[in-house]
Amino acid sequence: MEKNQIILKGIAAAPGISIAPAYLFSKESESVSAEKIENVDEALENLDAALELSKKEMRKIFNLAVDKIGEKRAAIFEAQMMILDDPVLTSNIKERIKNEKMSPEYIVEDEISKYIRIMSASNEPYMKERSHDIEDIKNRIIRNLKKKKWKSKISNDVIVVTTSLSPSDTVLLSRSNVKGYVTDFGGLTSHAAIVARSLNIPAVVGIHEATNIIRNGDLLIIDGFHGKVIVNPTDILIKEYEEKIEKLSQYDEELLKLKSLPAVTLDGKEIKLMANLDISEEMSFIIHNCADGIGLVRTEQLFEEYEVFPDEDQQFEVYNKIAESIYPKVVIIRAFDIGGDKVLPVDLHEPNPMLGWRGIRLLLDSPNLFKTQIRAVLRASLHKNVWFMLPMINSLSEVVAANQLIDECKKELTEEGIKYDDEIPVGIMIEVPSAAVLTSDFADVVDFISIGTNDLIQYLLAVDRGNEIVSSQYQEFHPAVIRTIKHIIDEAGKKSVPIGMCGEMAADPFALPLLVGLGLESLSISAAGIPLHKKILRSLNYSELKRLADECLNLKNEDEINNKLHKFFNEKISDQIKNLY
Amino acid sequence: MEKNQIILKGIAAAPGISIAPAYLFSKESESVSAEKIENVDEALENLDAALELSKKEMRKIFNLAVDKIGEKRAAIFEAQMMILDDPVLTSNIKERIKNEKMSPEYIVEDEISKYIRIMSASNEPYMKERSHDIEDIKNRIIRNLKKKKWKSKISNDVIVVTTSLSPSDTVLLSRSNVKGYVTDFGGLTSHAAIVARSLNIPAVVGIHEATNIIRNGDLLIIDGFHGKVIVNPTDILIKEYEEKIEKLSQYDEELLKLKSLPAVTLDGKEIKLMANLDISEEMSFIIHNCADGIGLVRTEQLFEEYEVFPDEDQQFEVYNKIAESIYPKVVIIRAFDIGGDKVLPVDLHEPNPMLGWRGIRLLLDSPNLFKTQIRAVLRASLHKNVWFMLPMINSLSEVVAANQLIDECKKELTEEGIKYDDEIPVGIMIEVPSAAVLTSDFADVVDFISIGTNDLIQYLLAVDRGNEIVSSQYQEFHPAVIRTIKHIIDEAGKKSVPIGMCGEMAADPFALPLLVGLGLESLSISAAGIPLHKKILRSLNYSELKRLADECLNLKNEDEINNKLHKFFNEKISDQIKNLY
Repeated sequence: MEKNQIILKGIAAAPGISIAPAYLFSKESESVSAEKIENVDEALENLDAALELSKKEMRKIFNLAVDKIGEKRAAIFEAQMMILDDPVLTSNIKERIKNEKMSPEYIVEDEISKYIRIMSASNEPYMKERSHDIEDIKNRIIRNLKKKKWKSKISNDVIVVTTSLSPSDTVLLSRSNVKGYVTDFGGLTSHAAIVARSLNIPAVVGIHEATNIIRNGDLLIIDGFHGKVIVNPTDILIKEYEEKIEKLSQYDEELLKLKSLPAVTLDGKEIKLMANLDISEEMSFIIHNCADGIGLVRTEQLFEEYEVFPDEDQQFEVYNKIAESIYPKVVIIRAFDIGGDKVLPVDLHEPNPMLGWRGIRLLLDSPNLFKTQIRAVLRASLHKNVWFMLPMINSLSEVVAANQLIDECKKELTEEGIKYDDEIPVGIMIEVPSAAVLTSDFADVVDFISIGTNDLIQYLLAVDRGNEIVSSQYQEFHPAVIRTIKHIIDEAGKKSVPIGMCGEMAADPFALPLLVGLGLESLSISAAGIPLHKKILRSLNYSELKRLADECLNLKNEDEINNKLHKFFNEKISDQIKNLY
Repeated sequence: MEKNQIILKGIAAAPGISIAPAYLFSKESESVSAEKIENVDEALENLDAALELSKKEMRKIFNLAVDKIGEKRAAIFEAQMMILDDPVLTSNIKERIKNEKMSPEYIVEDEISKYIRIMSASNEPYMKERSHDIEDIKNRIIRNLKKKKWKSKISNDVIVVTTSLSPSDTVLLSRSNVKGYVTDFGGLTSHAAIVARSLNIPAVVGIHEATNIIRNGDLLIIDGFHGKVIVNPTDILIKEYEEKIEKLSQYDEELLKLKSLPAVTLDGKEIKLMANLDISEEMSFIIHNCADGIGLVRTEQLFEEYEVFPDEDQQFEVYNKIAESIYPKVVIIRAFDIGGDKVLPVDLHEPNPMLGWRGIRLLLDSPNLFKTQIRAVLRASLHKNVWFMLPMINSLSEVVAANQLIDECKKELTEEGIKYDDEIPVGIMIEVPSAAVLTSDFADVVDFISIGTNDLIQYLLAVDRGNEIVSSQYQEFHPAVIRTIKHIIDEAGKKSVPIGMCGEMAADPFALPLLVGLGLESLSISAAGIPLHKKILRSLNYSELKRLADECLNLKNEDEINNKLHKFFNEKISDQIKNLY
């Protein structure tokens, strides 16, 4: 029977086009279904692995939490760990898997729920509270069981369809044959979208009905340029899109011819186009696309798959490999930016995590964690091409405190006879509005500055970029945003402090003429975007970009600025890249 | 047996000293205990009232939600309402109350949990999901049952001890004989703390162990100046504190002698000291303390106890009464600031509500709700002493859209032959950093500006003021904060737009010299603080305040600024008010 073609519209989160069958996955514990298994041994192995993984995660959570919220309140995590070690519980579960030949997630759900029911029926507040903890740990085990399963299940090319993706899901799935991501929820600047872009995998997010409408195995076309997903396309449409894919790959080849040429405007203004690095696999792509260095290593992403925080040697090895691969170009390593929507394994139940314990705040509260990273970065800096960057800086005192720890680490390394770059540049992200206000003061004490637009915009406008209800308010072309960017560039410029930008705005071709016009000379974007940025820059005059920026600075309204930039784009640029837009 | 005296330290959230027995209350559903009742009729009545209240709340939630998140997703709320109308369920509960003579919250918990257990044990995802909804509604009914109970229970003077207080709990409890609030959680600028200050009831928050250590009926001394709570104090200590209370009341009397005098510095600079109004009961206190008008009516607080949004006539009556009572002085009515931590009855599960759907965003998305308020305010403006203020403004387009609605309402009223002030001043809160950046542009289109420091500080510094983990980062004397305030004052001043401040910073005696020195001429604070502010101002020279502010503007570090202000305070002010600090 011919299936009906359905066209779904969502948000274009990562460009590209793919055609592949849908692979639905759900990671919520609610969807555990009674499923027979064939290979009991494999199931038991998976169970052990998931228990071990859960235990490691819990240990990481406990260690982080105990530092901050105190031994006493962190005890709930310890209690959860004890459940994982309960021999009666685990042997019950294993026996049942053997006897009933049902999937481990089903047995875990069923067996642990018994305890939960008994405990939550109690009128003893303590017991009730404990039942929530057990619920948490049950869900964690099931989640980890499912992760094991996905990894092995995706063997053919698929387009993943799910309610929402965490950055770790995205990375995890990227290791398989994933040709696209389709989600019910999520916004343009969610971290999952960022990861998809850096992996060069098309993504369409925010299609509310995706998981309801799409069935496993449905053939999909995903169009990441226009935010479209076509379910069970007609043969005519498949042919049309196959031609588009062919054209795109020709265009990519053409763009790549530029790769050894500099990113320079017609009138000679040279712009550094650096690459962001989220996962190690990107390195070869970064070198292939001739990035002018690495402008942002998101270290918290790099080790996302580690169950415990990586130790100094593990970190050193990774950082050193990156530094060597990009040498003699520079790599800017950002200290762990954990918390907010970033990969913090601890759920501290902060009511507003974006305004909470994250970035430098968490690092300074966890000096051992931080020093381990500093030592690893210092050790990788030997060839003098490593810069070190501090996230979420709010106050000069944070820079002072971080520098003290860096000095301590240097002293330790010297005493241990280990070499490093004693002059390693230390810089900050400006992403909190207070830091933007104080740019001039920061410029006196740091070696470089990078504007992190994702957070800066969200704090300046008080809009959570991941919250769909208000995401239309998240405006990168808001006059307050561009005036603040201008202020930062000017104040840093007065003190000759190198300034770059590493947020998603830097990667937006529509924003590019404005940003260069405002005076930015260094942008860090995903490697995939470098050729197109280069092509655009090489077709424009810096003088006209300055004029464009001045005009935008005088506008009072985000719509006017938006219109002006799109008009400029259509007149000057779009004919060169019309295949794409 | 003599009980042991225990001294607990927390955060001083509202000043004052009281001595009274502890009244512990818990509002979490977890703490429902099997409790026999004597009066079955009363219990049934309470049950009916709680069901009715829950239904009204749900209707309010549904109406708001359907506008924004769409009929389909709002359907979960509708499903919850249906549960409340289920005759089998309610009659089962009533029968059991009659037969078993147990408290309605116990029976509700027990009876509804049966359904939840059955549903959550199902492997059908839909059923599981529904079980969460039922859990929600169960908790809502129990919460409302408990509210009824508190109201009737507190008949003697008590100090309320609880895990945390919502603003609505605070207001609700204030109607009883509450002499103090002690909580496990919460920060200095939580809304509950603000309400406690405006009610002039001492509060100490953030004592993590309070509800563990304090038992019902324990005698407590609460010292809201120093954030101390003394459990089972010795007779000596009781005597000491009774003397302090006596001294305080003498001091209050002395301060009140100033009440008919203006708030003017020794060298003749006059400052307007206006009052905030959160609940109607404050009106007489505001007049008694001779406020120079009302600088902020938090309308969302005013109607907090209403189960549904008040209609136009209800609102008109309240606004009109306030306007008449304060006439000829001015009252600034702020449009509903719902969302964030403000009283939004909808839990939209926003991951970061502070960066979400709140203030003007919600109002413009709910034009019927907004227009009802605008019409009521306009009708109350007849005597030309009403100003109207828009919260959470981010962009000029929001002002344009709000003005369009105001014009529509004016036209409607004119057509209906209803009189109002056609020139009613319309102003904005500057509390989002983007608005601070654009002050000059806003000054062209608004009639007045009020700086809302609570939110402004939290967004500028990216710190949730309610999150204890990072609350030490919430610094009102951060250099970026005071430079931003200066920028706003200067830019508004250039265009001669009246500018005031209505956040908690305005009420801080330590901040007062700085704020006046920065050029603020109007402050809105809780009425209780006006006499002290007046006394401080009347003892200082404006010229030295300007110097102080200039010095602070040149400092780069929050600690330095803090030290300077405290030094100034100790040298110039503290001897005059040494009883308090």
